[in-house]
Amino acid sequence: MARKAADANDSRERMIEAAISLMRGSGLSGAGINEVVRESGAPKGSVYYFFPEGKLSLAAEALAVYTQRVCGFIDAALSSRKAPEEKVRALFAAFARRVEEAGYLRSCAVGAVSLDLDADVVRLQPVLAGACTRWVDCIAAHFDLGDAKRTRSFASLVLTSIEGAYVRCRAERSRKPFTEAGEWLSALAAG
Amino acid sequence: MARKAADANDSRERMIEAAISLMRGSGLSGAGINEVVRESGAPKGSVYYFFPEGKLSLAAEALAVYTQRVCGFIDAALSSRKAPEEKVRALFAAFARRVEEAGYLRSCAVGAVSLDLDADVVRLQPVLAGACTRWVDCIAAHFDLGDAKRTRSFASLVLTSIEGAYVRCRAERSRKPFTEAGEWLSALAAG
Repeated sequence: MARKAADANDSRERMIEAAISLMRGSGLSGAGINEVVRESGAPKGSVYYFFPEGKLSLAAEALAVYTQRVCGFIDAALSSRKAPEEKVRALFAAFARRVEEAGYLRSCAVGAVSLDLDADVVRLQPVLAGACTRWVDCIAAHFDLGDAKRTRSFASLVLTSIEGAYVRCRAERSRKPFTEAGEWLSALAAG
Repeated sequence: MARKAADANDSRERMIEAAISLMRGSGLSGAGINEVVRESGAPKGSVYYFFPEGKLSLAAEALAVYTQRVCGFIDAALSSRKAPEEKVRALFAAFARRVEEAGYLRSCAVGAVSLDLDADVVRLQPVLAGACTRWVDCIAAHFDLGDAKRTRSFASLVLTSIEGAYVRCRAERSRKPFTEAGEWLSALAAG
């Protein structure tokens, strides 16, 4: 029984990881049940067993896991340096490496799903908005630009630039949009 | 005959417009032949008549039309003001209005398709990269930040921020990512 429960948890986890990877690749359209089954190797029935509401409930949970994981990634990059301008450069360099290592075929799951939003998937919108808020909080906690409002606004610009650089890196097969934005924003962080 | 040719041209144009609108809505995945036929009202056979290679050749042509049109949009917004900081604000405000008027359900066709890129649609990648280059050129022509390299790099940051703000606006159902980025970047443009 314990073994069976462990296997089940393992299947569930693999489905979530598959959904994250597929959403990073091509948004919600790439993360259909058939694709998740193929990518995860889990039996098709088990997707509906774990996610009775299907694709959107799996996507919502995968986005929550992903959001938390990216917070950790952001924290690690920003904690690796002391000076604000160095923090910004380190963050953008970390994202540049990430996109390059994935052959420019993976970007932000939240960004990719956001650009797929339509009336049918509108229930994912609060999940995506929540992810953005969480990441802005997470970035803002590492900076002090004089007052809280300005710091938060700067953190928000950092997130906007990351999402935009992810778009352009895919199109241009280049890490330059990240390093370039990192340079400009590090000048802003330095005041 | 002339009437028939005019009708044919009209069908072709409607298919391209439908593809642009659908790609702005949910990227390449939303712009399949069936969707284009439904949205344009054109007969299904005519898609293959005009675009014998199907979806990707229609998408490539639609993206070319869209790229040119957005250049016009950027030029108009940037030409509406004299001072560099005002130009930047006007550009971001114009995009903010655009996304708001579309109920936060349409963003940049190039951005949305970029986040859908995979091995099957890799032939669209140069089209997307070309659009980015064209837009950076188009923005850079309106500014002078001392030297050509710095001006171009700033224009590139403007494009990155627009693409990122488009992502976030969809997720957050808010124009704020545009107005906020506009404020920060106008400060940079003012030197």
